[in-house]
Amino acid sequence: MFPDFDYAARLDRARDLMTEQDIDVLMLSIGADLPYFSGYEAMPLERLTMLVVPRDGEATMVVPRLEAPRVDRRGGAFKIRPWDETEDPIGIAAGLAGKPSTAALGDPTWSVFLLGLQQALPRAAFVSATRLTKGLRIRKEAEEVRWLRSAAEATDRVVTRLDAVRFSERTERDISRLVGTMTLEEGHDLAAFAIVASGPNAASPHHEAGDRVIGTGETIVVDFGGRHRGYCSDTTRTFHTGEPSAQVTEAFAVLEAAQAAGRSAIAPGVSAEAVDRATRTVIDDAGYGDRFIHRTGHGIGLEVHEHPYIVEGNDMPLEAGMAFSVEPGIYQPGSWGMRVEDIVVCGTDGVDELNRSPRNLHIVD
Amino acid sequence: MFPDFDYAARLDRARDLMTEQDIDVLMLSIGADLPYFSGYEAMPLERLTMLVVPRDGEATMVVPRLEAPRVDRRGGAFKIRPWDETEDPIGIAAGLAGKPSTAALGDPTWSVFLLGLQQALPRAAFVSATRLTKGLRIRKEAEEVRWLRSAAEATDRVVTRLDAVRFSERTERDISRLVGTMTLEEGHDLAAFAIVASGPNAASPHHEAGDRVIGTGETIVVDFGGRHRGYCSDTTRTFHTGEPSAQVTEAFAVLEAAQAAGRSAIAPGVSAEAVDRATRTVIDDAGYGDRFIHRTGHGIGLEVHEHPYIVEGNDMPLEAGMAFSVEPGIYQPGSWGMRVEDIVVCGTDGVDELNRSPRNLHIVD
Repeated sequence: MFPDFDYAARLDRARDLMTEQDIDVLMLSIGADLPYFSGYEAMPLERLTMLVVPRDGEATMVVPRLEAPRVDRRGGAFKIRPWDETEDPIGIAAGLAGKPSTAALGDPTWSVFLLGLQQALPRAAFVSATRLTKGLRIRKEAEEVRWLRSAAEATDRVVTRLDAVRFSERTERDISRLVGTMTLEEGHDLAAFAIVASGPNAASPHHEAGDRVIGTGETIVVDFGGRHRGYCSDTTRTFHTGEPSAQVTEAFAVLEAAQAAGRSAIAPGVSAEAVDRATRTVIDDAGYGDRFIHRTGHGIGLEVHEHPYIVEGNDMPLEAGMAFSVEPGIYQPGSWGMRVEDIVVCGTDGVDELNRSPRNLHIVD
Repeated sequence: MFPDFDYAARLDRARDLMTEQDIDVLMLSIGADLPYFSGYEAMPLERLTMLVVPRDGEATMVVPRLEAPRVDRRGGAFKIRPWDETEDPIGIAAGLAGKPSTAALGDPTWSVFLLGLQQALPRAAFVSATRLTKGLRIRKEAEEVRWLRSAAEATDRVVTRLDAVRFSERTERDISRLVGTMTLEEGHDLAAFAIVASGPNAASPHHEAGDRVIGTGETIVVDFGGRHRGYCSDTTRTFHTGEPSAQVTEAFAVLEAAQAAGRSAIAPGVSAEAVDRATRTVIDDAGYGDRFIHRTGHGIGLEVHEHPYIVEGNDMPLEAGMAFSVEPGIYQPGSWGMRVEDIVVCGTDGVDELNRSPRNLHIVD
């Protein structure tokens, strides 16, 4: 599924960082760090998969025997150690780790496996692998940007198709399934989520599409995405059945201006929190400050949420190649909600906009 | 999404076990333990959601503010503590835990959160929450069996529809998408996976459907499932394009007999490993022992894989209400593979079969 990157070179870069940071072994299970270094994604199940990368030894993928045929060795960047149903995979992984003083463990690894590793390696201090992987994954290679752009373009085509869809008198769930189907039709490998939040539900940013029937004169937040060759898409447009009220029109104009201000603020050297402030200031100044209840954005790549987070308190300077969302929202509890989200990349002298579908309030039947 | 169970009563039972096992606090994040006790499922993202259940105090759900509107308090079984983007959710959860000597943490909780909790609560010993939750979740309530049966019946209808589908000259991915669509059409909320493994790929038990075009004279393992009101389905049937060879026919007869032997072995008091031995003995005796490379089955409920595991070494006696899969397979590397999987429940005096679609080799075009 994943494109054919130079995984051995990435492992070499990780080993350089391990030397710098005095980390003896890197241990990766489920989540995106594993495919970043191996092209293989572990199944998020109770059987342990773990790539063990000693700083000074060969990398080995510990994998359930029945999943071993799924693993492509990708040019021999690592060995495979299949384990049988009656073996102890934690013991195998701990044995491959040697006698580490410091072990870096992938963040989403199940806690029960960390508890087992702490027992098996009582002298090791465990730290988050993010201190190794963040700096590598946060700056996308040109080839990664190409895949992110391709995924974004597919979702833009879905937005265009949605303009012709009747929303009224259909359930949120119906529209959500339709968005999922269209996302697959436009070439995604996975339609991961499709929030369809109508009327008062639109005020819940992570609403789960349900049985509510969409009426007329309602805002509908459609926030959807998936994966294409391992790379994520994530875009939001706000629809409206029939003509919007003056209140909705006014708030939407503020939202559009805020989202544009966020995109305009992006350049190398600008801090992540400055982009958050750029959107928030516009919304604050218009008097909607307490109706914008989340950060401006999140990084995106192999994961739909990853570094850099576009949030107050993150003073990391943006660099060319960083990919993230710009997605302010305004939410009126009990009544309506609206959000506009694009995926962008920080270019060498400004923003590179991956999503380009119209950002206006989309009037539909 | 989840049915309306008596969540307060379930929390009371957990507190009784905490007293018995001298556990001071139960902390649950992503995974199925959380909805089992609250009817709410956390999003598997970097923002922490955690239900903190002190043995002697009120339960509190720590949840990102933007997701708080998703949480239904379910009759007040717990309080909600929304956290803002610039707050520290680990600190909040640790504060709600009090000063525990022993804290039980949900298995799939991200390791990075466990590392944070270990720093915030340096005197606490962390243990797997499974020692509390396994005994409760493993015996399904009658209402839970009803939802599992409903999910299984939906997948049986998909199998019936697949008998009329042409497999030859289509890609695995095409058939996989079709299975997913049918699963949703039959009423599932989520089509979680659809393994379609043809020809030599059928020998890889967890094969990911790809671009391979299905030919004639091939076995195709179709293993699929999803969720219906929170409860999982998971069934496998083996298809064959055109007439099977004598070798495939002979092996399939062994497989059918093995799967039937597994189902017949089920009764209260019989050990989980005895069910594994029942299927394995038939396959071993026919000379295919080294071609059956995985356990016989896994429990199912809110998770597609949960306790009890039907595997050598698990001497737990089955009890009425335990739900699990019976899914032996025979795999000929490079050539073909076959598997038959049903979800069953241990009844008071024998097996209750939830899947009932025909188990024979399904001949298709």
